[in-house]
Amino acid sequence: MPELALMDNVWIMICAVLVLFMQGGFILLEAGSTRMKNAGHIAGKTIFTLGIGSLVYWAVGWGFSYGEGNAFIGLSDFFFGNYETADEGLVGSVDFFFQMMFALIALTIAFGGFAERAKLSAYVIFAVLFSAFVYPVVAHWIWGGGWISELGKQDFAGSTVVHLTGAAAALAATILLKPRLGKYNKDGSSNDLAGHNQVFTALGVLILWVGWFGFNAGSTLGVADAFFGYVALNTQLGAAGGAVAALFIAWALTGKSDVPTMLNGALAGLVAITASCAFVAPWAAVVIGLVGGLIVFFSMKLFDKARIDDPIFALSVHGVAGVWGTISTGFFATPELSEMVAGRPGLFYGGGFTQLGVQIISVVAVAVFAFVVSYILLKITSAITGGLRVSEEEEIVGLDLSEHGSYGYPESMPGQDTKTGA
Amino acid sequence: MPELALMDNVWIMICAVLVLFMQGGFILLEAGSTRMKNAGHIAGKTIFTLGIGSLVYWAVGWGFSYGEGNAFIGLSDFFFGNYETADEGLVGSVDFFFQMMFALIALTIAFGGFAERAKLSAYVIFAVLFSAFVYPVVAHWIWGGGWISELGKQDFAGSTVVHLTGAAAALAATILLKPRLGKYNKDGSSNDLAGHNQVFTALGVLILWVGWFGFNAGSTLGVADAFFGYVALNTQLGAAGGAVAALFIAWALTGKSDVPTMLNGALAGLVAITASCAFVAPWAAVVIGLVGGLIVFFSMKLFDKARIDDPIFALSVHGVAGVWGTISTGFFATPELSEMVAGRPGLFYGGGFTQLGVQIISVVAVAVFAFVVSYILLKITSAITGGLRVSEEEEIVGLDLSEHGSYGYPESMPGQDTKTGA
Amino acid sequence: MPELALMDNVWIMICAVLVLFMQGGFILLEAGSTRMKNAGHIAGKTIFTLGIGSLVYWAVGWGFSYGEGNAFIGLSDFFFGNYETADEGLVGSVDFFFQMMFALIALTIAFGGFAERAKLSAYVIFAVLFSAFVYPVVAHWIWGGGWISELGKQDFAGSTVVHLTGAAAALAATILLKPRLGKYNKDGSSNDLAGHNQVFTALGVLILWVGWFGFNAGSTLGVADAFFGYVALNTQLGAAGGAVAALFIAWALTGKSDVPTMLNGALAGLVAITASCAFVAPWAAVVIGLVGGLIVFFSMKLFDKARIDDPIFALSVHGVAGVWGTISTGFFATPELSEMVAGRPGLFYGGGFTQLGVQIISVVAVAVFAFVVSYILLKITSAITGGLRVSEEEEIVGLDLSEHGSYGYPESMPGQDTKTGA
Repeated sequence: MPELALMDNVWIMICAVLVLFMQGGFILLEAGSTRMKNAGHIAGKTIFTLGIGSLVYWAVGWGFSYGEGNAFIGLSDFFFGNYETADEGLVGSVDFFFQMMFALIALTIAFGGFAERAKLSAYVIFAVLFSAFVYPVVAHWIWGGGWISELGKQDFAGSTVVHLTGAAAALAATILLKPRLGKYNKDGSSNDLAGHNQVFTALGVLILWVGWFGFNAGSTLGVADAFFGYVALNTQLGAAGGAVAALFIAWALTGKSDVPTMLNGALAGLVAITASCAFVAPWAAVVIGLVGGLIVFFSMKLFDKARIDDPIFALSVHGVAGVWGTISTGFFATPELSEMVAGRPGLFYGGGFTQLGVQIISVVAVAVFAFVVSYILLKITSAITGGLRVSEEEEIVGLDLSEHGSYGYPESMPGQDTKTGA
Repeated sequence: MPELALMDNVWIMICAVLVLFMQGGFILLEAGSTRMKNAGHIAGKTIFTLGIGSLVYWAVGWGFSYGEGNAFIGLSDFFFGNYETADEGLVGSVDFFFQMMFALIALTIAFGGFAERAKLSAYVIFAVLFSAFVYPVVAHWIWGGGWISELGKQDFAGSTVVHLTGAAAALAATILLKPRLGKYNKDGSSNDLAGHNQVFTALGVLILWVGWFGFNAGSTLGVADAFFGYVALNTQLGAAGGAVAALFIAWALTGKSDVPTMLNGALAGLVAITASCAFVAPWAAVVIGLVGGLIVFFSMKLFDKARIDDPIFALSVHGVAGVWGTISTGFFATPELSEMVAGRPGLFYGGGFTQLGVQIISVVAVAVFAFVVSYILLKITSAITGGLRVSEEEEIVGLDLSEHGSYGYPESMPGQDTKTGA
Repeated sequence: MPELALMDNVWIMICAVLVLFMQGGFILLEAGSTRMKNAGHIAGKTIFTLGIGSLVYWAVGWGFSYGEGNAFIGLSDFFFGNYETADEGLVGSVDFFFQMMFALIALTIAFGGFAERAKLSAYVIFAVLFSAFVYPVVAHWIWGGGWISELGKQDFAGSTVVHLTGAAAALAATILLKPRLGKYNKDGSSNDLAGHNQVFTALGVLILWVGWFGFNAGSTLGVADAFFGYVALNTQLGAAGGAVAALFIAWALTGKSDVPTMLNGALAGLVAITASCAFVAPWAAVVIGLVGGLIVFFSMKLFDKARIDDPIFALSVHGVAGVWGTISTGFFATPELSEMVAGRPGLFYGGGFTQLGVQIISVVAVAVFAFVVSYILLKITSAITGGLRVSEEEEIVGLDLSEHGSYGYPESMPGQDTKTGA
């Protein structure tokens, strides 16, 4: 193989590993944002859903995404097994492996809506259905030559494909599962069922931040012109903007800057810059991040007011910030960069409303599709598992005990036999 | 240096760092699988044993593994100090650094058998002895031109060399140290001395999974044909198979899927695919992983029944799954791949029993050697340290206090002065 | 772009991500070394200070460091926005991103001196001031063509630039903030306000160790001759030496090897080898690490005796070991390597006192500059925020509650409503 192609493959292989590492960030973010009685369950389910998602994506997900097919879906290349080399660009296995990692991120985001009340069996079945029928279709539309890609949509690394798709599924799950016990009072006010470990949450955000350089800078799909460096710079500035904006808005409006909001600000900045990191100037990356950080603060409040219980803030961080990020390229894409990479310049650079319109149409289409299909698939799941949600007693005692038979922190639960081994 | 060689070096350097990162996975896996009173000790000993192992491997381990010598052992290149460049392939320092990381993994696996009862001084001395006299000899036999490599053994990334060697040493330690206090009752039944933090355990497994791409895909020792991508794909499918199989077998046979079994399934899939990841088709990787996940479940039960106390499941995960993985290539190795890389096709591809025989012989030879020599070296260690095990009182109070003078979680221990600083 | 240049950029991009990951190590090290009531705050502030530091470094820090200017400071290239390619070496964005990561490490080290008692507002303001006026000036002096670089200073990866600068700022903060409540008794004796989680601390050290390969081996700024491998080897041996020395000195002199000392030994070895990793022989790396491990033990005792309260041991690990590391190259730099890279051989190789003198002068200059300017900037910060330190009541209740409005571990605090959701 030519050396340039080998370099492309090395770079994307490493980026794929970084994206896999993001799952460690999700383990910590989800476990830290929920309560002790569910911690072993939340952390452990990430491992087996990785397993299920990988097998399903290998069997059919890749084929539905990137196989030969039509504008709606791909229909070839199931059960991937190619070990051949390539004359240029990525070899099949590296391309496949990188794309698989993105599918697994979308799945984990979707499960944010299940937190602290869904049955283990519901995770198993929905992991199969989502990895086969939701994510691959959206990936085909935007990245696999489907109808949205033909419109000239700009979604460099997946604000829409990965984050919005996952969040739309999470929204369907959250609505069907209903709020956690004790979350909302009869008068409509809400209680803070605070997560049990903010060190986990903060470390989770840092790991996600680290892995995001695989996600965004790897979406170059190669090393040409070392353009990944520019993408990385914008990614860092977007994250920074989000972190700073959330810190100050929470401080200004509530008198204290609470840790979850600060952390979600950084994530919202990262999600927002994911669509546009290859198309905008660094100052615009800062602005996109700052707006992402502001949006996530208000979005968290609004969902809470609407009595939509979102324990891990997946709807605000991945959904709302994902929408903002996708639309933002319609404003900020520069002529040089959008020409270099793909698409048209944004409204602020005289590109008019064309690109903005494409961005908005695609966001609506993906959100509606992912929400509706996930809703239907969750109804099917529910029919199979006899309801998506554990019983009231099981939820009170916690999913560690009800779904797995023992606490995740057996020595730290109040009133628990500590088994210190004497 | 030629650009191709530079690329090989960059890739292997990065893989070495990924393998080092696996130690973080072990810190979490071991700490999470044991009790609070030993957590600081278990986590902290990983850092100093890394130090000891590195110095010993630098002084003599590399020379015994890869020096000029005979079929049994290498005998040159001690105290590595080469900074010269190379015309092709890896420069000395990168090769050395990558191999050192593997030696350190084997050492950490071996220490799985010490958990919750061995003296700190026993760790110190056995770290020296194992890193000098056990691991390097096996590495020489299989990867250093020794007698097993001459048979055409297939162990791509070290199911045997690293995992089985470590596990055989752990078995010797476990037998000599005897079960933990309170583990087995007089009637032969066993108690669950549950680990204290399943979030740690799950995150540990994820980090090991991530680092495994350095371990397996790095065992290409270069970038030729971007073959690392195919190795990575098989690695992912093996891990996925293991995770899924363990989930379902535990669920089916015990009524609940416990978190430790789920997690060990993923690890067993990874260990099993480590030998064969370069030799088999993706569907076979799935099968090898699935079988690994089933095996680890039954193996955990069997060791428990045999009253062999294995707190971190090192014997089942690294030992039994390592044996399965090594033997599996004798069944599944394809003609194309085994020709491309090394060795003969497996039984299922008409290769007959030759490769299978080589695999079995090598597994037996390594297991016996590593067990017997480790047993002898542990006896020597015991003679120096006045017994391998802490006193009954020290074990009850925990090794944090007995070996290091303070608790790892000083504010969380029941009945402990919390020192909140007022 | 030429393939060699592309490879340089890939390598440095990956190293930059590794250095960013070190922030995860600091989150764990700092949270683990402090008390439960401050854990959410300590972990969370790392995220927003990353945000502030990134924006400030982007706006002015890079320009002050590497812009055209004079021997004291750079004065161009503010608000970095270059996405152009390069004919050789690093493209602007990769170079910028890598250097930004170093600036953020120095900032996090400086905040070690704030632990458990500084106001959130003080973090915000000092993050701006340090990232604009302290770190960039030192970086300009030594790496940006300033007056110290003209003397032929050897500081390969930043023992002085990053670690000593951060530690000098931390010393100024520690002195101004005064010891934590309850740390020192009226009779001058000190209490051990032990950190709450040694698993966090140990994992933090391992993550820092992993990230350090980006820090040191990435300071090659390219792949030429695969020299990064040699740098990595020395880094590993330095860390190993430090870990082993601290283990034994604590054991020998106190009767027990306490976990924090063991862990700080590894870090001190890493800090010490950071200056010299490209200039010395492997045996010298071992010696430099061993001495680093011994020094950190005695340094911790001395600061404690001097009633300088250093909760995260930043002064000993980054300051004292940083000084030792920088000076050590004046002893151990070999003629071949110092010629290959930069500068003169050390005293032990017949280089006389010239290089040693340069090293000592530069250490003194940087320490004095960073301390004095940080002291003044902290006084300014204090004037803006109405004192750097929270009130006595706030410190007793903890910064999680006082600065952010809720505990980081809401279910684990003694006497806290556990909100288990029933």
